[in-house]
Amino acid sequence: MKILGIDPGSSVTGFGVILIEGSRLSLIDAGALRLPKTRALAPRLRDAADRLHELIDRHRPDEACLETVFSHINVRSALVLAHLRGSLMVELERSAVPLHEYTPLAIKKALVGYGHASKEQVRSMVKRLLRLRTLPRPNDISDALAVAVCHAHVRAVRRRWEGS
Amino acid sequence: MKILGIDPGSSVTGFGVILIEGSRLSLIDAGALRLPKTRALAPRLRDAADRLHELIDRHRPDEACLETVFSHINVRSALVLAHLRGSLMVELERSAVPLHEYTPLAIKKALVGYGHASKEQVRSMVKRLLRLRTLPRPNDISDALAVAVCHAHVRAVRRRWEGS
Repeated sequence: MKILGIDPGSSVTGFGVILIEGSRLSLIDAGALRLPKTRALAPRLRDAADRLHELIDRHRPDEACLETVFSHINVRSALVLAHLRGSLMVELERSAVPLHEYTPLAIKKALVGYGHASKEQVRSMVKRLLRLRTLPRPNDISDALAVAVCHAHVRAVRRRWEGS
Repeated sequence: MKILGIDPGSSVTGFGVILIEGSRLSLIDAGALRLPKTRALAPRLRDAADRLHELIDRHRPDEACLETVFSHINVRSALVLAHLRGSLMVELERSAVPLHEYTPLAIKKALVGYGHASKEQVRSMVKRLLRLRTLPRPNDISDALAVAVCHAHVRAVRRRWEGS
């Protein structure tokens, strides 16, 4: 089972693909797409959608996940981000990759155990759970991996419940 | 010269294609796409993008235009609308249709002559300029035609300036 995590950002979008084998998680691929703010919005959205399309083609993820964002940012940034999310969601839908969304709170709870964990604590758990030597940079990549790990965790919990 | 006007809305998206021949404008096609709010966002966005793709394929518009929205609506609606706009912008970009955006103020000024015109005044000018017997319903269609007519007007003014 392959999970694609995406951290959409108006200047950098992080992504990460992880593999779930039983209770073991491992990193398959991760990267970041820079979308220079000097360019018009439409070509930036198109580049992001094209890049996601390539990623899906290369890795054929079974499921994808995104953060439900929109906290702690101003309205203008939130609107740009929503345009970006829209273009990515169409790409996932066209490739029939089921999409799951998680709040920042849910991600922190799943990885660290409580909702008030810092971003650093979350990233350090990503490093540990995926057995990485160093954390991928920029942070957008670690954040994308965090959503993917969160989803892996939620799936495992759900399966345990359904199995009981 | 064919202009595609789009009025994206979270429940109904209007579109209209007009033809410019000299100073004469005429209606080629217009319609509305309903996006039921009961469905998840991703498939609604995909339907909108697919519909736009068909429209572009059928009419091969030279240029497209959108309203810059986001006034008078709450943040949640604005975010849904931004997702929708993002998915439509990628489609236009992929089809290499140049996109122009207009504020509601610019549209009112172009069609009625002043920025405080009512929506009804704008729609009545759409009807008159396109020589329609009745206004297309729902209003989202007339609003999409209004953006297209606004762009036709702006192009004409620009050409006059460039020619002088």
